Amino acid sequence: MPHLTLEYTNNLPDYDAQAALRTLAQAMFESGLFGEADIKGRAHCLATYLVGTSDTATAFVHLQVALLSGRSAEQKQALGQHLLAALRTTLPPGHGAVQLTVDTRDMDRQSYAKAVLAAVS
Amino acid sequence: MPHLTLEYTNNLPDYDAQAALRTLAQAMFESGLFGEADIKGRAHCLATYLVGTSDTATAFVHLQVALLSGRSAEQKQALGQHLLAALRTTLPPGHGAVQLTVDTRDMDRQSYAKAVLAAVS
Amino acid sequence: MPHLTLEYTNNLPDYDAQAALRTLAQAMFESGLFGEADIKGRAHCLATYLVGTSDTATAFVHLQVALLSGRSAEQKQALGQHLLAALRTTLPPGHGAVQLTVDTRDMDRQSYAKAVLAAVS
Repeated sequence: MPHLTLEYTNNLPDYDAQAALRTLAQAMFESGLFGEADIKGRAHCLATYLVGTSDTATAFVHLQVALLSGRSAEQKQALGQHLLAALRTTLPPGHGAVQLTVDTRDMDRQSYAKAVLAAVS
Repeated sequence: MPHLTLEYTNNLPDYDAQAALRTLAQAMFESGLFGEADIKGRAHCLATYLVGTSDTATAFVHLQVALLSGRSAEQKQALGQHLLAALRTTLPPGHGAVQLTVDTRDMDRQSYAKAVLAAVS
Repeated sequence: MPHLTLEYTNNLPDYDAQAALRTLAQAMFESGLFGEADIKGRAHCLATYLVGTSDTATAFVHLQVALLSGRSAEQKQALGQHLLAALRTTLPPGHGAVQLTVDTRDMDRQSYAKAVLAAVS
């Protein structure tokens, strides 16, 4: 916890997903809501996608943030806006039309299970 | 909003995922609940999957629909059935045994964040 | 229903994702909460990921379990712990530092839609 899942369409050919994950994880950490080592992110380049009902040249970048239940509605709203601002900075210069979206969702704290294992020597 | 995520197992070799996204986005639009330009879809071919507890030849196609909270239970139920019917039409002729599933989930409207950016010239 | 989605970072090079899906599906079935044929799993190897705010060598394996709403909090908590224990057994010997997480989430039962189709001859 928390988990970041970043998706971007492959008509953003210069999108640096690894750098974007660093930017977004930093924004998460700056929120003060999470421990640094707990932030886990992954990015997926989308090869088969659609905006609207027919093929278009529009791009999109979507971030899902999954965090343990317990944060207030105000904290989640502020986090969503903070991450959206961070997401804007990850776009390559000269990008085409693009939609940016951030979905913040709760994970059920009671049933969430976790183990942190050291390296096996 | 809304977001469609389509997954299909790679033992449906003739599955046309791009056409399926068009069919599903059209079904979303026909529901009257969403603006055309807001519908965003992506499809993933699954190479590592399992039905049941041992390897089988069964295929599955799973659609997740994420929409902003506020639709009624009846609207979501009708949408799920409408999308399931659309999903059936996307199957290739002569397909093998297959499970089709549609999961409609709410995204928290208050914390959802979005920006629509024009092309940078 | 239920759906298992397993993600593992590609710095676990000997991770056998197909075997892991079998182990996890078996653990699901042993819980007594699900029919065997209903369990559907998929695994994704993550090539672009991040733990913390800077690139590290830490690995993670994340399992999302999506099940129809109606199970009690106690059942979901027990299921999460049971799956975490199963997940531990899927790690390759001599693995590096790794975080294991299990997120159990409800799917809305009323709007969930499903069709089981036989092979078309």
